[in-house]
Amino acid sequence: MQKSFAFDIIATDGAARSAVLATPHGSIETPCFMPVGTRATIKTLSPRDLEETGARIVLANAYHLHFRPGAGLVERQGGLHRFMSWERPILTDSGGFQVFSLGDTAVIRGDGVQFRSLYDGSLHFFTPEMAIRVQEQLGADIIMCFDECPPAGAGAGYLKAAVDRTARWAARSRAVHSRRDQLLMGIVQGGTDPRLRRQSVELTVETGFGGYAIGGLSVGEERSAMIDTMTYTADLLPADKPRYFMGLGDPAGMLEAIAAGIDMFDCVLPTRVARNGGAFTSGGKINMRNAGHSEDDGPVDPECRCYACLNFSRAYIRHLVTQKEILGLHLLTLHNVTFLIDLVRRAREAIERGRFHEFKSSAPPAY
Amino acid sequence: MQKSFAFDIIATDGAARSAVLATPHGSIETPCFMPVGTRATIKTLSPRDLEETGARIVLANAYHLHFRPGAGLVERQGGLHRFMSWERPILTDSGGFQVFSLGDTAVIRGDGVQFRSLYDGSLHFFTPEMAIRVQEQLGADIIMCFDECPPAGAGAGYLKAAVDRTARWAARSRAVHSRRDQLLMGIVQGGTDPRLRRQSVELTVETGFGGYAIGGLSVGEERSAMIDTMTYTADLLPADKPRYFMGLGDPAGMLEAIAAGIDMFDCVLPTRVARNGGAFTSGGKINMRNAGHSEDDGPVDPECRCYACLNFSRAYIRHLVTQKEILGLHLLTLHNVTFLIDLVRRAREAIERGRFHEFKSSAPPAY
Repeated sequence: MQKSFAFDIIATDGAARSAVLATPHGSIETPCFMPVGTRATIKTLSPRDLEETGARIVLANAYHLHFRPGAGLVERQGGLHRFMSWERPILTDSGGFQVFSLGDTAVIRGDGVQFRSLYDGSLHFFTPEMAIRVQEQLGADIIMCFDECPPAGAGAGYLKAAVDRTARWAARSRAVHSRRDQLLMGIVQGGTDPRLRRQSVELTVETGFGGYAIGGLSVGEERSAMIDTMTYTADLLPADKPRYFMGLGDPAGMLEAIAAGIDMFDCVLPTRVARNGGAFTSGGKINMRNAGHSEDDGPVDPECRCYACLNFSRAYIRHLVTQKEILGLHLLTLHNVTFLIDLVRRAREAIERGRFHEFKSSAPPAY
Repeated sequence: MQKSFAFDIIATDGAARSAVLATPHGSIETPCFMPVGTRATIKTLSPRDLEETGARIVLANAYHLHFRPGAGLVERQGGLHRFMSWERPILTDSGGFQVFSLGDTAVIRGDGVQFRSLYDGSLHFFTPEMAIRVQEQLGADIIMCFDECPPAGAGAGYLKAAVDRTARWAARSRAVHSRRDQLLMGIVQGGTDPRLRRQSVELTVETGFGGYAIGGLSVGEERSAMIDTMTYTADLLPADKPRYFMGLGDPAGMLEAIAAGIDMFDCVLPTRVARNGGAFTSGGKINMRNAGHSEDDGPVDPECRCYACLNFSRAYIRHLVTQKEILGLHLLTLHNVTFLIDLVRRAREAIERGRFHEFKSSAPPAY
């Protein structure tokens, strides 16, 4: 791994750890939550809003950007950082998850996968090499191998095939990756089967990456199976490399994952919850559409210091949300992203004080 | 008029004038453009965004707020300023325009008008006294008399009846208005008929108000008739009181109106243009959806200093707009509002330098 991607562990508390990951666009303190900017924008938030939430790295989707506006266009515009005016680190996913989950049109053919575009239904063929090429054009600091992510409940044969294919694709991804200013991460699959997870870890670590992601969880399986599998898998991964749990973002789930030694998270949850009028609070999740908030002149969360909570009442935000005013969606998204980032930041501080277990026990109720 | 609403003319240039209108929430420099916050929010903009556009007064709609969330609720929340977290001046319109223009259900009955709510179709009866009561509850700094606004092309009999009724309603509005911290403005009607406009001015001035609005224009009539009528009417209005042209906001139209001695404007145009992917620029209006912008790394308007123009390319904004991303709508709205406010501010400066005519001649092409 290049020196610019040094991963320094600052403190540990049980399996939980706080660390710093260096990237060409600055260092990231972990554990960290990465807001998702599918189409090179975190829904309703400008880069200065994002900065204010405490976000220090964001995620964008190679699949979506490949189709709109095109990775070549982004490259000609100077890369993703300049395109979206975000000068801090960016991670792109490879598109594997989208190819296999959107529209149910993926068919493995030869050395790649054929699928129909979500945008216009046209036929496309994608390979691990192409996924790396697209991500090199986009120019994120951290990029992901192209993987096969089976749905929850997939049979043992399917899961095993996906583990093997993901490992072969990982080796091919690594072989063609040439940008030295990008950290390439491998992805571990295997559903909720410990034996397959172990095999997937061994195969992926054998190829060797600057970081490892746990994929194929938080896709619909039982919560206890998710936590057990994550805990089991995290423990198998190299301790000296960042560990990333893809697609997890609920407060209680992230705390479990941090306890298991996970360093990075991403999830569309704060935006999606906001779209449904929901807000995370220190007392649990609330629905701002509820008539009970209509005359409430207090903030969404009295413990929060975000712009929404410092300046607006629940009564006003309920009015905006029920009238479908975009400002309501914006304020709730700003709050929810701030809430999750703040939670993970406080988890980090607790690890450094050796009090993560107490922090986890006193954390907000499960969502 | 209360001392707190002093209207001081600073400079004149022909009929154009620059002035300062004092209100309980601070002074407004005129000519001024007021962004429209129909439901107590200027679409996609937070109060801090608005502050940054240069907006110093915003408009909200009594009609909409009466139905959602209710004027009583806003009053219990401490009034409109606190509710929407905007500590500068606010103007509310009376709801007259909405009652007569939305849904075509208005019927004059006795001393008021019966109509169906746009929200749920329920039957309502509104009087001038109720419109004042609602606006007193909302608590804006400047409020409007309840008027009858006929559509463009209304016959002479209808126009005459509306002029008389609007004058009677103005007298009744004034008689019941009790809040000393609000400036009540009268509204002049009369379509494009100079004789009716003169009658309307005489009747309204006879009652006497702290400011006068020109209503019933920019509702679909020929542009030349609009400009002629506006110019004729503005000249009849008292020179020592603010003059407000309701519903006008296109750049060329505002400059004509300023030349005629108008001081205040409001319009949904910057938001509506943004919703259609349009942007005002120093070179004329452009449509950001056009494929010609897809690889353009320059700003929307190189002469603009707004956050959108300083940080994002046309290529990125086109991507956002074509992908229906809210950030695109937000950035275009921020830019368009800034553009109009900046135009009117520069008109004011030109008046003070005695060069308004040159400024008007060199202004952006008609839109």
